[in-house]
Amino acid sequence: MPEFFTVLTPDHALARLWDHLRDAPQLETVDLAEAVGRVAVEAVSAPESVPAFARSTMDGYAVRAQDTFGASPTLPAYLTLAGEAPMGRPPTFSLGPGQAGLIHTGGMLPAGADAVVMIEVTQPAGAAEIEVQRAVAPGENILRVGDDIQAGAAMLPAGHWLRPQDIGGLAALGLIRVAVARQPRVALLATGDEVVPADQAAGPGQVRDVNTYSVAGQIRRAGGVPIRAGIAPDSFKALSRAAAAALAQADALVISAGSSVSVRDMTARVIDSLGAPGTLVHGVAVKPGKPLILAVANGKPVFGLPGNPVSAMVTADLFVVPTVYRLQGCRQPPPGRAVRARLTHNLASQAGRVDYVPARLDYNRAPGAQPAAEPVFGKSNQIFTLVFADGMIVIPMDITGISAGEEVDVRLF
Amino acid sequence: MPEFFTVLTPDHALARLWDHLRDAPQLETVDLAEAVGRVAVEAVSAPESVPAFARSTMDGYAVRAQDTFGASPTLPAYLTLAGEAPMGRPPTFSLGPGQAGLIHTGGMLPAGADAVVMIEVTQPAGAAEIEVQRAVAPGENILRVGDDIQAGAAMLPAGHWLRPQDIGGLAALGLIRVAVARQPRVALLATGDEVVPADQAAGPGQVRDVNTYSVAGQIRRAGGVPIRAGIAPDSFKALSRAAAAALAQADALVISAGSSVSVRDMTARVIDSLGAPGTLVHGVAVKPGKPLILAVANGKPVFGLPGNPVSAMVTADLFVVPTVYRLQGCRQPPPGRAVRARLTHNLASQAGRVDYVPARLDYNRAPGAQPAAEPVFGKSNQIFTLVFADGMIVIPMDITGISAGEEVDVRLF
Repeated sequence: MPEFFTVLTPDHALARLWDHLRDAPQLETVDLAEAVGRVAVEAVSAPESVPAFARSTMDGYAVRAQDTFGASPTLPAYLTLAGEAPMGRPPTFSLGPGQAGLIHTGGMLPAGADAVVMIEVTQPAGAAEIEVQRAVAPGENILRVGDDIQAGAAMLPAGHWLRPQDIGGLAALGLIRVAVARQPRVALLATGDEVVPADQAAGPGQVRDVNTYSVAGQIRRAGGVPIRAGIAPDSFKALSRAAAAALAQADALVISAGSSVSVRDMTARVIDSLGAPGTLVHGVAVKPGKPLILAVANGKPVFGLPGNPVSAMVTADLFVVPTVYRLQGCRQPPPGRAVRARLTHNLASQAGRVDYVPARLDYNRAPGAQPAAEPVFGKSNQIFTLVFADGMIVIPMDITGISAGEEVDVRLF
Repeated sequence: MPEFFTVLTPDHALARLWDHLRDAPQLETVDLAEAVGRVAVEAVSAPESVPAFARSTMDGYAVRAQDTFGASPTLPAYLTLAGEAPMGRPPTFSLGPGQAGLIHTGGMLPAGADAVVMIEVTQPAGAAEIEVQRAVAPGENILRVGDDIQAGAAMLPAGHWLRPQDIGGLAALGLIRVAVARQPRVALLATGDEVVPADQAAGPGQVRDVNTYSVAGQIRRAGGVPIRAGIAPDSFKALSRAAAAALAQADALVISAGSSVSVRDMTARVIDSLGAPGTLVHGVAVKPGKPLILAVANGKPVFGLPGNPVSAMVTADLFVVPTVYRLQGCRQPPPGRAVRARLTHNLASQAGRVDYVPARLDYNRAPGAQPAAEPVFGKSNQIFTLVFADGMIVIPMDITGISAGEEVDVRLF
């Protein structure tokens, strides 16, 4: 059993693959409006302070805080109105001692003011005077220059996956063009004399290509651009020609290999023929996940995924998806969606191996409470096992089983 | 305090809005490869069985199971080789009693065979004979016709959000064109005399438009198409003209309203002028989230979001995002990403109100264990509060506080 010695944990396998990848992603510049979900290639610092001027956070009166000290409903402070701060323009007045200025939320403070009194604790007292019934401290109810972000402060690290609030922050700074990683093109090549394109009728003995469609969906979600490179027959010459052509036009190659031993072996030889260093990992301690090849050819990652549809999606989730983020220079990809649920049945697992078990979530068993996670025991892990599941229960390496009633994370696929 | 009586829970507020929306989404047909993340408009049933023929799930020999009954390593069954099943074509031979056929994973069973013996439990015994050292039951190591899905079986319900495995399942069935909901166009209109476009320099008293950028990112993630409709000044006439024009070219309208009382009131009047029935909800029991308007004008949803950037994102998450899914007819939108973490500080909350508290996740406090969730207490919930946060701790309605050390869900924004 030589395979025993080559079987790595998923983390080690991925690290070995990544050791041989180029580091710098290629960049392109996009409009801010298109940048959500893309990866910022360069660190961003604030070119200016936000806000750029002291602003009110309330409707009320801009004041000199010291003029309100000691004010109370029974002993209010009386201030003279010096004007009204307009929206979008600097006030044309400044505050002297004993003066106040009407101001709206977001308005610019007049010179001399260092706080705002909420309108609710004031009263008009004649045409040009107000009563202030509560003291404010300097800085109260205002934002000072740079309170949101200071000029020069680090905003985003390089390799940051851009979220809606990051887009908002870049807009606040006027950074409406963003340098992001080019979306990696991932070629998908199916193999197998029995596989026909999904748009064709499948004759006796034939099945339609499934894996390049499902894995393409996973790649697209991770920010990659899937390129379907067709179906190659089970011949070394035809497969290696198709694989080389697919890899040449892409940044990575996924071969959905056949499952029979002879086809597996041929796929391994084809992958090794694509370029140095070739195969780095052959087999990983994950179930389902056999057979799996991780390789690098001339700086580009090459994945030989299992032909079984569930195995293909599990290994794509473990290896292809993180690598698509990595090709974008992404330091911390968004975590996958997961739901915490209560297991309905005991699940056994083998120590030293990560187990993925398809599961359905049932929200109706105990309404309002945690959903139940019911394992789906499909006959042979075909694609509809996952179509009829909500996700997969992941049983970590060092666990030998989970009992009914325990909490599990169900990764939504 | 009349507002007290109008404040609804987020669920009730959304239900009231949705009661007034049209039900049927508009559909378009897309290529399967483009369909991930879209919503299927119609229920899908399997037009044919998958697999369409009995297939082997192993490398081995197709057999008649009864011929192997009683076989063991010490008393093997001897079977005569009748041929090799080719990949992608029907076998040209059938099995009679005492016969076996070489078969590969995925190969079509010859007539007469009802099981497959794994190659590992066989031995060659002369040129045309094999030893079988273990019995197999009928159906073992094979998929029968329809074992993955039966012709006529329900595959997807109407309103299903298409995941990668659904794409794979549709490919297996040859359904390469899918009827999906048209992506809703959501117009985004900013208001405020102080607001300038993000690509302009902000002069004294001016700030750049943030909310239409951040909320556009949220809409895009939910499958909507954000359309930026510009910035309207604080005048009833200008704002209502801009709002009507924006709504006419879209399926929904989001107005990022100013925060001062006068601008709020004007926005409410503008929204009511757009069409019947007008405002349905004014104020919801969520913090931050004031002021909020939910309205419907001529069948289209209209949202008046708060001007504060964090409030705008929270209310968009609660109301705009689910409505964008709803406009696509989506029955069960994908849950938002969340991470289970341990709270570092006590958090107080008011009963009868949902509280959102920005939080940072710290994975380094207790390596390997759950991350720590550290609340971010920004001065006034400006956009960089969320840029520097990983997500929000959501404190449900009926909870008055959470203690340090307790587990919380951090919703990733």
